[in-house]
Amino acid sequence: MRSIYLDNNATTRVDPEVIQAMLPFFADQFGNPSSAHAFGSSIRGAVRKARRQLQALIGAEFDHEIVFTSGGTESDNAAILSALEVMSDRTEIVTSAVEHSAVLTLCAHLEKTRGVKVHRIPVDRHGRLDLDAYGTALTPRVAIVSIMWANNETGTIFPVAKLAEMAKKTGALFHTDAVQAVGKVPMDLQSTAIDMLSLSGHKFHGPKGIGALYLRRGVPFSSLIKGGHQERDRRAGTENTAGIVGLGKAAELALKSTDDETRLKSLRDRLENGILQRVPGAFITGDPLKRLPNTASIAFRHVEGEGMLLLLNRCGIACSSGSACSSGSLEPSHVLRAMDIPDAVAHGTIRFSFSRDSCDEDVDRVLEVIPGIVEKLRDDSRFGRVAKASGPARSGES
Amino acid sequence: MRSIYLDNNATTRVDPEVIQAMLPFFADQFGNPSSAHAFGSSIRGAVRKARRQLQALIGAEFDHEIVFTSGGTESDNAAILSALEVMSDRTEIVTSAVEHSAVLTLCAHLEKTRGVKVHRIPVDRHGRLDLDAYGTALTPRVAIVSIMWANNETGTIFPVAKLAEMAKKTGALFHTDAVQAVGKVPMDLQSTAIDMLSLSGHKFHGPKGIGALYLRRGVPFSSLIKGGHQERDRRAGTENTAGIVGLGKAAELALKSTDDETRLKSLRDRLENGILQRVPGAFITGDPLKRLPNTASIAFRHVEGEGMLLLLNRCGIACSSGSACSSGSLEPSHVLRAMDIPDAVAHGTIRFSFSRDSCDEDVDRVLEVIPGIVEKLRDDSRFGRVAKASGPARSGES
Ligand SMILES: Cc1ncc(COP(=O)(O)O)c(C=O)c1O
Ligand SMILES: Cc1ncc(COP(=O)(O)O)c(C=O)c1O
Repeated sequence: MRSIYLDNNATTRVDPEVIQAMLPFFADQFGNPSSAHAFGSSIRGAVRKARRQLQALIGAEFDHEIVFTSGGTESDNAAILSALEVMSDRTEIVTSAVEHSAVLTLCAHLEKTRGVKVHRIPVDRHGRLDLDAYGTALTPRVAIVSIMWANNETGTIFPVAKLAEMAKKTGALFHTDAVQAVGKVPMDLQSTAIDMLSLSGHKFHGPKGIGALYLRRGVPFSSLIKGGHQERDRRAGTENTAGIVGLGKAAELALKSTDDETRLKSLRDRLENGILQRVPGAFITGDPLKRLPNTASIAFRHVEGEGMLLLLNRCGIACSSGSACSSGSLEPSHVLRAMDIPDAVAHGTIRFSFSRDSCDEDVDRVLEVIPGIVEKLRDDSRFGRVAKASGPARSGES
Repeated sequence: MRSIYLDNNATTRVDPEVIQAMLPFFADQFGNPSSAHAFGSSIRGAVRKARRQLQALIGAEFDHEIVFTSGGTESDNAAILSALEVMSDRTEIVTSAVEHSAVLTLCAHLEKTRGVKVHRIPVDRHGRLDLDAYGTALTPRVAIVSIMWANNETGTIFPVAKLAEMAKKTGALFHTDAVQAVGKVPMDLQSTAIDMLSLSGHKFHGPKGIGALYLRRGVPFSSLIKGGHQERDRRAGTENTAGIVGLGKAAELALKSTDDETRLKSLRDRLENGILQRVPGAFITGDPLKRLPNTASIAFRHVEGEGMLLLLNRCGIACSSGSACSSGSLEPSHVLRAMDIPDAVAHGTIRFSFSRDSCDEDVDRVLEVIPGIVEKLRDDSRFGRVAKASGPARSGES
């Protein structure tokens, strides 16, 4: 049975070209880029090249606006904590109710331990941000706005350029978690007012454990991880050179494959339309107009997502549910809750996420098996309780 | 000309077996270990195996005492910042004057921005810690002691087991930066009172960008990087699975090659004795009795380290100087300064650091060229100013 991987918002396969680019930096070129001798200097050039590859992908004005980090979560934490430190006369954060836990968990912690006030802007049934509430929350007390470019569960895209303009007027810093957007939608940061942006290599065919924070020139910053002078004092620690080179190559490949967007969208649309036609009581969640080309989030009434995952998995199909199985209880995700999707429906929400590895046959196979699976689960019980997939199932969270 | 790499305290070559172990986790086994489906579950086993390999190397009691991080610097920062948070009624830190910048820069920042009081315990001319000063600094106001296991510049080993016992009596947490010690000296953490320990993969033939924090069971902890539930809520962010597997393999290999210690020591001793015999005005820095088997830190009177590095580099030999070239000025390192080594001597301190890749011919070659190099530099001028090696030269800092 061929494996079908439709969980690319959780993580992607590292591109073979990326692996090839990384290999020399484990072997011959293993030096420390901070070293004065020959083993160090050749590596500095490779790091610079990777910085430029990322700069090109996101349309940054300067290559030194890229700071390499260990991933999206670190970048998010670094951005928010820095803002609170450098804008020390401001003590509020504006974010959305549907951010990734990398932002929301940190915000909740800051609220509890440091008395920071956090505004979580709500969304409507289609996952669209409430712009009135956003405007109201923006006051001169706000140190930083952190609002995601695209949602990991539904693919909904927020109007970050416009949100950044609005934030600027009150003097707040604007950060966007673009972990799900980078490499999937075109970007030209220099034409925006965005101050900081997080990205993560493994979401666009780069390695895990490497990411970056875009930090617009002139934006005040205090590093999260302190120590040596690496990354111009903005991120201490010996550089992950192989990871950096791999991330750079992944950026180059993502920029080259811009036609992927159309192809992905047509795969995605065929999947969605095929399911809507074949399965009664199914509908799409998220913004029908503004969303990632690769993401389909589909709710099935009276079905439990975990059961669907299990049966899809048995057919060799990997995807995610919109409920997180923690400590045995099946809670719908905070994203679906924020969209006011009734629990009974949210429980049966499945995310299919494509990448350039995906093909027509993947869609065919899903369309072939899914009507039977839904029917079986609905037959089993009105709420289709089946044995749970083993292991932690926080799929939709990534 | 064969390249000779004697800068293994800066970084080491990734072992070919480590690369082999990592490769599958970029390609077929690219899944996210948090995913419920088949792509995720096989990877969880590999992560568990790596945790056990590290547990074995450092002699931890439980595998879940290992928390994977992005490296030594992150581990150091995480340990210290956590202690200040969980021991909120205590506001002092005890550390040494010769720690790595990963500890000292953070401490200086905390002193400045949070009013934390930092005790930097001095060392004597041989780099040995002042135990009286240490005892005096230990009061019930101390939240955490952070003292390194072995010094990166001189190789001097501190009596951390004893220091931890003393700290325990006052209720402080004890952390040790063991980045230079792990894989070089045997460890049995479960027989000590050490609460936390930092290690970094690239210092013992593992990849860069991966490390760990040992966190003794029951020690209260607040994570530095917040977000998803990875690493039992102690370090958020998608796991760097390839890096973790590589780190585990590196730990396994380090544990197997315990006879290396004797071989390294004999290489090191032959180098040191050879230089002392051939070059007048040379002497060893650091504790002559208690130091790493792989590290030789040698001071040459009336020579500038940067000039030596340059000429050694021309002979294909890579090593480090004990002075850091920042903004054009050649400052002796804080470690040599703390040892009260006069600047004129500290300027001419060179660190040769061996690894299991090193061999007898490396030593022969250094002994062959070094008398001529020192003579040339002393001839050129009393302080031997020659053109500086290009690029940043923070070698000794790593
Ligand atoms: C929107 C979003 N932000 C942040 C992250 C965290 O990135 P990483 O796991 O690389 O730290 C993810 C994925 O896990 C994500 O989807
Ligand atoms: C003693 C010591 N601590 C911490 C570090 C930092 O480790 P890393 O560069 O992996 O973050 C180093 C090396 O750079 C070191 O030698």
